[in-house]
Amino acid sequence: MTARFITIEGLEGAGKSTQLSVLANWVTDHHGSPLVTREPGGTPLAEQIRDLVLGHHTETMDAWTELLLVFAARRQHVTEKIRPALAQSQWVVSDRFTDATYAYQGGGRGIDWARIEALESLVLEGFQPDLTLWLDCPADIGLARARQRGELDRIEQENIDFFERCRAAYERRHREHPDRVIRLDAAQSIEAVSADLVAVLEERCA
Amino acid sequence: MTARFITIEGLEGAGKSTQLSVLANWVTDHHGSPLVTREPGGTPLAEQIRDLVLGHHTETMDAWTELLLVFAARRQHVTEKIRPALAQSQWVVSDRFTDATYAYQGGGRGIDWARIEALESLVLEGFQPDLTLWLDCPADIGLARARQRGELDRIEQENIDFFERCRAAYERRHREHPDRVIRLDAAQSIEAVSADLVAVLEERCA
Ligand SMILES: Nc1ncnc2c1ncn2[C@@H]1O[C@H](COP(=O)(O)OP(=O)(O)OP(=O)(O)O)[C@@H](O)[C@H]1O
Ligand SMILES: Nc1ncnc2c1ncn2[C@@H]1O[C@H](COP(=O)(O)OP(=O)(O)OP(=O)(O)O)[C@@H](O)[C@H]1O
Ligand SMILES: [Mg+2]
Ligand SMILES: [Mg+2]
Repeated sequence: MTARFITIEGLEGAGKSTQLSVLANWVTDHHGSPLVTREPGGTPLAEQIRDLVLGHHTETMDAWTELLLVFAARRQHVTEKIRPALAQSQWVVSDRFTDATYAYQGGGRGIDWARIEALESLVLEGFQPDLTLWLDCPADIGLARARQRGELDRIEQENIDFFERCRAAYERRHREHPDRVIRLDAAQSIEAVSADLVAVLEERCA
Repeated sequence: MTARFITIEGLEGAGKSTQLSVLANWVTDHHGSPLVTREPGGTPLAEQIRDLVLGHHTETMDAWTELLLVFAARRQHVTEKIRPALAQSQWVVSDRFTDATYAYQGGGRGIDWARIEALESLVLEGFQPDLTLWLDCPADIGLARARQRGELDRIEQENIDFFERCRAAYERRHREHPDRVIRLDAAQSIEAVSADLVAVLEERCA
């Protein structure tokens, strides 16, 4: 099987980081050690862009500024790390990718869907994950888990309506790309979510 | 006369900063004190993006990453500073704007012209300067002037071919927007350039 690019998506506290290690272990066992990465970020420059996106500022960040920064980081990440790994037959697993942009800048910030699609196609020219595992749970459940961590970044401090709009946008991605974006019920226990995740991998990537 | 947005363009050392003060003085005398600004930059956040664009990195910055960062900074600049000033009838003068993106990322880096146009229209929705003063001189003359300043940033360190491509792209912008982008012969003395610049202002903006 040619090397695959698999992403994990979901709201804050959905369990992405927790399940990413289950995913990485499964890939290691079946296809060799993957490149494990995250967005925004994934290269030193892209991580600097991440700091601008998530950091607090003395001015209001315009939604399109945010959108362009996220795609700038992604372009660098894809060019420097993701494509080279795949080209060398290494699998790639990432904590978030483009679907998160539709969720947060599209659903959350309200940027027009078609304009994000136009930007995506300019920047990524059709490049997308082979498989996306969407950890879906109500926003309040995820936030309750995540907020035990303390200090909130610029996006985490948004209100519950913002995250419910993000969730609805993930749902739309799932509807528009049903073969690629697989919904997992992330309101379950960690073990139950992992079992569902592994079942998808066994079916799709074994 | 409604408030105008005037930009100065040209290669490194063409004399933009020198002539910007002539421009700002003329505007002050005729229409009140303008907002004087520059790109990339112009707001605290946009200046942080500028630092990423012009700074040195341990990885190669992809041309599209650079393009997206420049437009991210511009979007913030337009939204936070340029449009609000114009809305309050304050004139705006800027050291570089979108034409520089066609010159550097288009001509210099070789990004397809039509894709920059598509991105510009997504991000700026038709917003552009009312008048652009292009200080044109051969790349070697400008570079000789500019390089007396010492330390080169990431773009200044490019070779002469790069800057000749940028110059050719400015020429193309001038051809495509002949009423807006006015060419001034910047190989002349400072005083002669200033006189030409003031003559354009007297004709167009008095
Ligand atoms: N299914 C689950 N049930 C209960 N707790 C969970 C579950 N999944 C993860 N957790 C716990 O919730 C917290 C957040 O999980 P995790 O960091 O994996 O989420 P995340 O989606 O990566 O969040 P973020 O978007 O903020 O990075 C952790 O303390 C984790 O142990
Ligand atoms: N027409 C001119 N003839 C000779 N020297 C000039 C002329 N215009 C500017 N200079 C000198 O060249 C140097 C660079 O000028 P200036 O800083 O105005 O250029 P610039 O276009 O702003 O450059 P940069 O793009 O690097 O900011 C300065 O020392 C300035 O005094
Ligand atoms: Mg996480
Ligand atoms: Mg200057």
